[in-house]
Amino acid sequence: MLTIALPKGALLKDSIELCQKAGLDFSLFLSSSNRQLQIEDPTGVAKALLVRAQDVPVYVEYGQAHLGIAGYDVLKEKKANIAHLADLGFGYCRMSVAVPKDSPYRKSIDLPAHGIVASKFVNCAKEHFRALDLPVEIVPLYGSVELGPITGMSEAIVDLVSTGKTLRENGLIEIDVLFESSAYLVANPLLYRLNRDNIAGFVEQMTVNN
Amino acid sequence: MLTIALPKGALLKDSIELCQKAGLDFSLFLSSSNRQLQIEDPTGVAKALLVRAQDVPVYVEYGQAHLGIAGYDVLKEKKANIAHLADLGFGYCRMSVAVPKDSPYRKSIDLPAHGIVASKFVNCAKEHFRALDLPVEIVPLYGSVELGPITGMSEAIVDLVSTGKTLRENGLIEIDVLFESSAYLVANPLLYRLNRDNIAGFVEQMTVNN
Repeated sequence: MLTIALPKGALLKDSIELCQKAGLDFSLFLSSSNRQLQIEDPTGVAKALLVRAQDVPVYVEYGQAHLGIAGYDVLKEKKANIAHLADLGFGYCRMSVAVPKDSPYRKSIDLPAHGIVASKFVNCAKEHFRALDLPVEIVPLYGSVELGPITGMSEAIVDLVSTGKTLRENGLIEIDVLFESSAYLVANPLLYRLNRDNIAGFVEQMTVNN
Repeated sequence: MLTIALPKGALLKDSIELCQKAGLDFSLFLSSSNRQLQIEDPTGVAKALLVRAQDVPVYVEYGQAHLGIAGYDVLKEKKANIAHLADLGFGYCRMSVAVPKDSPYRKSIDLPAHGIVASKFVNCAKEHFRALDLPVEIVPLYGSVELGPITGMSEAIVDLVSTGKTLRENGLIEIDVLFESSAYLVANPLLYRLNRDNIAGFVEQMTVNN
């Protein structure tokens, strides 16, 4: 049976709609009373796993899900060995460098060598500053990254920006964009190549007229 | 001004009560309408940062907080360079290995070499299996670790267990305890040694008759 890993959070509603294009109904995950993490489509041809957005690439890489939906930001950060099949055209946001608006920094390269940058996306941040040849220290945080500059722990942050509201509320401004992100359909490369459980058929239905 | 990093989540209420023993009132963090991540005690002698439990050691290590309260599980996992001042006697739980109850494994060492263990506590899990000389693969997950064995991705999990309800609901049983955990008071070693902002005085009040 085809298994698809769906991300909790901001991408879930659009992901479930996408599955509906392929005739798969996982709308039970949207019900506030649902506690199940694994449900079968009523027609019995597929099942879905409801997992943390960062865990989607793991379930797909290890073959417990044939397909998955994950933000490009998560794919860049996790570097899982999975096939990126299609940009799904929703969940737009960007990975940015931000600093306090009254700081003197207006580009990443303005930051002091050996400065500190706080981020949930440690690998993305490291790559960005390595490419600039700027030896900053990347400090991993799990939440409320904006507290880094507010408390004076870090000169800057690397974080996902969607509307920019959180940055504005915390007196921060974007000074560089690392990349744009949106939701991607991903697959386990081997299962996809073998077209197990008609993966290709589902992918075609999900991505037609996308 | 003394700054203390308090953990969001299960330890917050007891942490705030502990601060009250030292005359510091941060109960605003318990109000559901509060959106501030940084508040000052009404008497003006200290402030508190409200951060993710895993981020407490970071703010303390980098000196943005003199003191912090964090679970021993987080301290073991993050290995931050901070001083462990006192076991606070609340937030009891244990770090355990669990497997599906119908599996043949009854001790960690029964697990197959090159088996897979899913965990949010990658360092703790690695250390445990390294000490046993058992070459398992540790797969990092961010949430719902119990899905690892349910989907067949992993033979076992290493996770925090408090009441054991989540394990039971998912057909898992504990087969080994790595360590017991509880909340600890931690300090930045240098600031503590210099007794900045009377850290020692606050620590004494917080830990007396503990």
